[in-house]
Amino acid sequence: MGKIIPIVFENGRLLLLDQRKLPYSKEYLELEKVSEVSEAIKNMVVRGAPAIGITAAYGMVLSAMECKSVDCTDIIKRMKVDGDVLKKARPTAVNLEWAVDLMIDRASYIKKADPLLFKWDLLNEAVKIHRDDIENNRRIGINALEILRDKKNILTHCNAGILATSDYGTATSVFYVGKEKGIDFKVFVDETRPWLQGSRLTAYELMENDIDVTIISDGAAAHLMDRGEIDAVITGCDRVASNGDAANKIGTLGLSICAGFYNIPFYIAGPLSTIDMRIDSGKDICIEERCGDEVLECKGIRIAPEGAKARNPAFDVTPARNITAIITEEGIAYPPYSDSLKKLFGF
Amino acid sequence: MGKIIPIVFENGRLLLLDQRKLPYSKEYLELEKVSEVSEAIKNMVVRGAPAIGITAAYGMVLSAMECKSVDCTDIIKRMKVDGDVLKKARPTAVNLEWAVDLMIDRASYIKKADPLLFKWDLLNEAVKIHRDDIENNRRIGINALEILRDKKNILTHCNAGILATSDYGTATSVFYVGKEKGIDFKVFVDETRPWLQGSRLTAYELMENDIDVTIISDGAAAHLMDRGEIDAVITGCDRVASNGDAANKIGTLGLSICAGFYNIPFYIAGPLSTIDMRIDSGKDICIEERCGDEVLECKGIRIAPEGAKARNPAFDVTPARNITAIITEEGIAYPPYSDSLKKLFGF
Repeated sequence: MGKIIPIVFENGRLLLLDQRKLPYSKEYLELEKVSEVSEAIKNMVVRGAPAIGITAAYGMVLSAMECKSVDCTDIIKRMKVDGDVLKKARPTAVNLEWAVDLMIDRASYIKKADPLLFKWDLLNEAVKIHRDDIENNRRIGINALEILRDKKNILTHCNAGILATSDYGTATSVFYVGKEKGIDFKVFVDETRPWLQGSRLTAYELMENDIDVTIISDGAAAHLMDRGEIDAVITGCDRVASNGDAANKIGTLGLSICAGFYNIPFYIAGPLSTIDMRIDSGKDICIEERCGDEVLECKGIRIAPEGAKARNPAFDVTPARNITAIITEEGIAYPPYSDSLKKLFGF
Repeated sequence: MGKIIPIVFENGRLLLLDQRKLPYSKEYLELEKVSEVSEAIKNMVVRGAPAIGITAAYGMVLSAMECKSVDCTDIIKRMKVDGDVLKKARPTAVNLEWAVDLMIDRASYIKKADPLLFKWDLLNEAVKIHRDDIENNRRIGINALEILRDKKNILTHCNAGILATSDYGTATSVFYVGKEKGIDFKVFVDETRPWLQGSRLTAYELMENDIDVTIISDGAAAHLMDRGEIDAVITGCDRVASNGDAANKIGTLGLSICAGFYNIPFYIAGPLSTIDMRIDSGKDICIEERCGDEVLECKGIRIAPEGAKARNPAFDVTPARNITAIITEEGIAYPPYSDSLKKLFGF
């Protein structure tokens, strides 16, 4: 791995690979302020639940660095204010608030007299979140391989790959781990309108890593299932409720329904940090509605009549009953999820 | 109606509104040769099963006009050769072969000593097919209104409207007929990648006729159904088998499965000329696979990495069991369709 590095922190600056411009140009945005991090998340410079979490953790480091007080209590106060703003950048992915809260928790714990040492330790905490994600990605892939190793044609949606995380991705990790072990998958990916994360990002990163990938229109998935061309579906997730209901990129719900219609297994892959045990069901997940213009345009080009209106829900919720298994770094959860997810957390 | 006229025959030329350029520019292509008609159908200048049928009928008139022989038998021979080429322009919509065969049948019947009078009669036959379609559209809308009048929020897919036919459309006719009777629908339309017939064509023609329309990404339909925002789905069709299996634009199958999952009625609208009683089931329908580049581009702009590959099935087949009713100009067929469709044909 490692051909693509979406998030880098160096010399006190956060470098984000601008995912809006991929795969046509590979530009890093350099951020020095937490407010810039908020904007970058909101405007989808970086996207994907785990990647948003890592970015937010580094954002909290920038927040601490921006605070000129030598008193750690002041710095933590500032981090809380900035953290609240960060959390509002995008509402659906739980990793955003998870990372902000974790950084504030850690800050309160490591509080030191020397503000420089304190900030240094904070950076180490963010790096730890980043490194853990790399390790979790790999373990998700290894676990997913247990389920998928005898399947060949796998459909995925959006981008739950390197670009959505830090290294192997969540849903895509099995393809990379498989490749290392000499197991070649044939991957289909929905283009995933309106942002085209499937054709722009997933196809790009799989091609960069010599994995066989074929792009299809979002509407074509059911047809390929009907023709027996899909053996399993695997997607990422942005927030999973304690009962197993899973929010993910718009279009996932429809895929899960079609997979069920054809008795094709439908898997969700994600780290435990994406599972929100505080909420009972998908009803408690806020679904972000983005500006309709994103649907009325494609790569900045108008594709609808002037004055047309659009609805643009960015996510949907797949009910637990449509999900064959949830694959995490700690193992695989099967229905009923209200029991199996608890076990993964060690409750 | 009548703000938009997709097909005109005048002064010995066929004028086709170039649907690839709508809604940004309204240009008519002028065709004088049947070979140009074939190309126009293949390249999607005109699309939609009934519109392709009407275009092919006029194409047969051009074929006859191009033949310089004064012997009607020669002219009919030429029409048969050109007809075979025309039929191959696109394989899925049955109206294409239906119209070609009908024109050759009529030509054999009206055979005259005077080739000019013969060609004049042929043109009248094509005009009759065109006029019948206008009348059929309206009757489909009236029949659909019986079913949909107490529903408000209707989802449609692709364009089975004025531009796919000659006047009211098939799936959209109910909105236009409803408007005349003071019944206002709230229409949702999938953008319908890769050609965007939903956002470019359906949204355009509904807006031109002051009908409330909202565009959504193809992946968003299931979410709106889940939230109770869709009361019924209605689409057109390109070929319906005698058992009720219906080929239509790629994405229709997935919609029908999702509608079933949420107990939302799913209707197919089309003229009898789209029902192919010669075939037993959807298995006998040839699904056109178009060039993958159409998926890798949007309005001519590349949206995927260089070297990426794509699959591009243009249609899918919705099984009869997913269809609540099939609405035609002759009435409404309910399951089991193997009986009800026969009755509509008067068998």
